[in-house]
Amino acid sequence: MRHDAPVNLVTRQQQILSHWSPEHILTINKSHSFKLATFKGEFIWHTHPETDEIFYVVSGGPLNIEIATNAETKHENDGFETVVLRIGDMFKVPQGYRHRPITENATGVLLVEKIGTINTGDEKDSDAGKARTKHVEEKVT
Amino acid sequence: MRHDAPVNLVTRQQQILSHWSPEHILTINKSHSFKLATFKGEFIWHTHPETDEIFYVVSGGPLNIEIATNAETKHENDGFETVVLRIGDMFKVPQGYRHRPITENATGVLLVEKIGTINTGDEKDSDAGKARTKHVEEKVT
Repeated sequence: MRHDAPVNLVTRQQQILSHWSPEHILTINKSHSFKLATFKGEFIWHTHPETDEIFYVVSGGPLNIEIATNAETKHENDGFETVVLRIGDMFKVPQGYRHRPITENATGVLLVEKIGTINTGDEKDSDAGKARTKHVEEKVT
Repeated sequence: MRHDAPVNLVTRQQQILSHWSPEHILTINKSHSFKLATFKGEFIWHTHPETDEIFYVVSGGPLNIEIATNAETKHENDGFETVVLRIGDMFKVPQGYRHRPITENATGVLLVEKIGTINTGDEKDSDAGKARTKHVEEKVT
């Protein structure tokens, strides 16, 4: 078989025991990466200036996405909303919107974003960001 | 709220009563479209020469994807394999691979592909294709 085998998202995600550490699942058209992660606790506020980011909850939840009120809101202290996601919910954080995910329970999440996207976005070199930054090996097929 | 509201894939798909008639859910980076559809019965063999296509089963199943043995297999009579997908399974049909979905039960499917992709691919103008071709209105945000 020259194509990739199917992946069950729940089964695959259950193998990911580290929190906030996305693993690559597949790419589409050599441009976008599908990743799975287990979230628990609160992540840091960050922005992806170059890509939209899709969140899809596969297990656990609820997952709160705190998101700046609009793309011009450059700091969370200037206003944000909370979007609550449950299993089966899909939500897009548009390019340039400052955001952070928070969840009390271990939650399985599918992420879709441009290939090469860093989980901590524009905060990858900040003190808080460095501790959370995960470089994901992406197999581009 | 200036971003889109979350979409529950199962709830949204249950509103789609027509078979083989994808509806647009969201776009990512103005390049790829996420669509939901209800499949039942057998679709026609076709190829997407310009895009990979991801299938993800949200309800029902099993969904069989018959797929040509390799990208050079231009007709299904020259060899194909059957990939069986159940709820939660994700599978990529690579660009240029002839394929068709078949399912006995009504099955909810998320599709991800380049914006502007026609469901019947290169068969959109054939007699069999015309009857199945669905032009989907895509809201590009």
